[in-house]
Amino acid sequence: MTATATPSHQPHTLLVTDVRQVDGSRVDVSIVDGRIAALGPNLPRDAATALEDGAGALLLPGFVEGHTHLDKTTWGMPWYRNEVGPKLTDRIENERHWRAHSGHDAGVQSLALAQAFLQAGTTRLRTHVDIDTVAGLRHLEGVLATRETLREVLDMQIVAFPQSGVLGRPGTDALLGEALEAGADVLGALDPASIDGDPVRSLDVTFGLAERYGKPVDIHLHEPAELGAFTLGLLLDRVAAHGMQGRVVVSHAFCLGALPERERDALLARLADLQVALLTTAPPSVPVPSLKACLAMGVTLFGGNDGVRDTWTPYGSPDMLERAMLIAMRNGLRRDDDLALAFDCVSSIAARACGFADYGLHVGARADLVLVAADTLAHAIVARPPRRLVVANGKVVARHGAAPAV
Amino acid sequence: MTATATPSHQPHTLLVTDVRQVDGSRVDVSIVDGRIAALGPNLPRDAATALEDGAGALLLPGFVEGHTHLDKTTWGMPWYRNEVGPKLTDRIENERHWRAHSGHDAGVQSLALAQAFLQAGTTRLRTHVDIDTVAGLRHLEGVLATRETLREVLDMQIVAFPQSGVLGRPGTDALLGEALEAGADVLGALDPASIDGDPVRSLDVTFGLAERYGKPVDIHLHEPAELGAFTLGLLLDRVAAHGMQGRVVVSHAFCLGALPERERDALLARLADLQVALLTTAPPSVPVPSLKACLAMGVTLFGGNDGVRDTWTPYGSPDMLERAMLIAMRNGLRRDDDLALAFDCVSSIAARACGFADYGLHVGARADLVLVAADTLAHAIVARPPRRLVVANGKVVARHGAAPAV
Repeated sequence: MTATATPSHQPHTLLVTDVRQVDGSRVDVSIVDGRIAALGPNLPRDAATALEDGAGALLLPGFVEGHTHLDKTTWGMPWYRNEVGPKLTDRIENERHWRAHSGHDAGVQSLALAQAFLQAGTTRLRTHVDIDTVAGLRHLEGVLATRETLREVLDMQIVAFPQSGVLGRPGTDALLGEALEAGADVLGALDPASIDGDPVRSLDVTFGLAERYGKPVDIHLHEPAELGAFTLGLLLDRVAAHGMQGRVVVSHAFCLGALPERERDALLARLADLQVALLTTAPPSVPVPSLKACLAMGVTLFGGNDGVRDTWTPYGSPDMLERAMLIAMRNGLRRDDDLALAFDCVSSIAARACGFADYGLHVGARADLVLVAADTLAHAIVARPPRRLVVANGKVVARHGAAPAV
Repeated sequence: MTATATPSHQPHTLLVTDVRQVDGSRVDVSIVDGRIAALGPNLPRDAATALEDGAGALLLPGFVEGHTHLDKTTWGMPWYRNEVGPKLTDRIENERHWRAHSGHDAGVQSLALAQAFLQAGTTRLRTHVDIDTVAGLRHLEGVLATRETLREVLDMQIVAFPQSGVLGRPGTDALLGEALEAGADVLGALDPASIDGDPVRSLDVTFGLAERYGKPVDIHLHEPAELGAFTLGLLLDRVAAHGMQGRVVVSHAFCLGALPERERDALLARLADLQVALLTTAPPSVPVPSLKACLAMGVTLFGGNDGVRDTWTPYGSPDMLERAMLIAMRNGLRRDDDLALAFDCVSSIAARACGFADYGLHVGARADLVLVAADTLAHAIVARPPRRLVVANGKVVARHGAAPAV
């Protein structure tokens, strides 16, 4: 493995030559001080410029992970044997017990997984970090340390996430406030009805905190069908009342996959109107919001893993091309133009939904590039070849298949 | 890539040392004349025996692909751009047109994909081959040539498959008979109601042919919900009437994923009683038979890809560990013991359902072994690491990551 996460002696100028854009055109990419300075055929080169030969590889923008939990992962640890019961509360209690007894360290683990994401081409990432009355801000401190370590290459947003709800354990709301003051960017929340048991009060606490600290919101809403629709309606009322248009993400939103079309579309219309975005992991075993329905109604839908190999799930991968494939498969997409929509969910649309700045393959954007040996974008999604080159913020962080197969 | 599909100078005796079984025990495996001769700790070795150092890798049996279409694949060809319409008939017509104009060669293509399966650890494979009035037996001839080329290492079953139905194009039934005489092992069939338009007559032709040629049946049943249930009932009547117990597979059977539990379980009980097996690809976007429900009712459910990168679908992989993962994800399985059930679907259960002989990791079985660097079986399924070693019928066919990433 030739990758290094925090190279310190990179030149300020880099020219990546002979890459193929998804439209088939061959170009060079000139990078100066971490930005794309020029993009076109046969760019001039001089002796002071470092060269990377793209050798005709397909050029993609750095990927965006829209929802993961770096602090929970067992990535690189001995295999965690999952013997957990089926209920959400089983999983929450099991994790709390395991963390207390396994010596799991959120700093070490989040760094291991973040580096794997980076080496697989993810240069922007939103991670939810558990804030609770047992661990306090300990997991946040670990993830903040990881963010600092990778500061030059990985653009990371941290969500302060109350994994046990905001109402059940007194003091959680104050801890969330402390987390936001300590460096978390976004306020998290979880199932106001089925976990907190009081959707109105739970949402009022969440939106009150968001307003007080001036932070956007990203809420995990697993509540099914009509219950989820009810809670979502209450949430949308508060987006309007608090003027939070364009600053709220609803993660999962399984309910939108289970409603009759008329009810679903009424909610999608409200989501579009209030500029509330949806995050999907596209799990194959539960109802999910339809990508095509969201597009048709003007709702922003983007993608993420959720947890990667933790006490909740054995699945997940730092390779966002795999997530694009799973999103495409879940939505029954087969045509090349449809697979491109799934890729948008882990690239441009995710960047816009999360508010990652200066994203894309255009002059002036942050220089986040991924090269893969693939004929087309659809080919890259289904083949998920090793990354030939990953450039993050102008720096080479992976070369020749530093793959995340741990 | 060090793999070779048809090695000719392999020694007759091979000792694979220091491998880990899924129960954690460390053993050696002694192979003589293509069979497992002994399996246990510290087996004796002598100078005449070739050695392969397992280095503590996890030992798995060779994988079984229960349903694919080697003759359709574009594997290794330039990327096929999918611009096909959404209907089943669109896809059938599109493929016929493409085959006539692209120079696609079923012999070349089936060999490329079969070798990729082998190098990824699949040593037994059932492939459906198109038989129709345009191509006649041409695709079959190509796949028969591939079977002959890989005879020493890949155990291949061929299904004579009427991709356009058995009733619509006169002469198809006679061609199916010719295919069975020419070397096909199993009689295929397709959607007796929704494609053939006459479920009774279609099924009667199929079961008549099966009886006349003394061959088992594998029918593609995509028909949804109540329609599929109706056709499945007619089919089960004929299994009983023709004494075909234990010799029929129903592939896909989407209907079983869409029925109310009582109706579903009544059909599952009949399937179990008549020893009719089900094949699933576990697609995430349509209803599928539940693995746990099948197990509870005593129905054999096994797994396969269906097509791999063809004009129908961009998806699919010669890595059956990936299929096991998709089956587990589709069924919402997370526990290690549940993931092992998904692995059974692409190994022991598939071998039993298809009738592949002498399968498994026991003395006397055909020596089909896969070694991977993984802590546990569940880890192997989610990480899908490169194959450290693949032994097929006692011969080394892949070593140190001859991965099928094409």
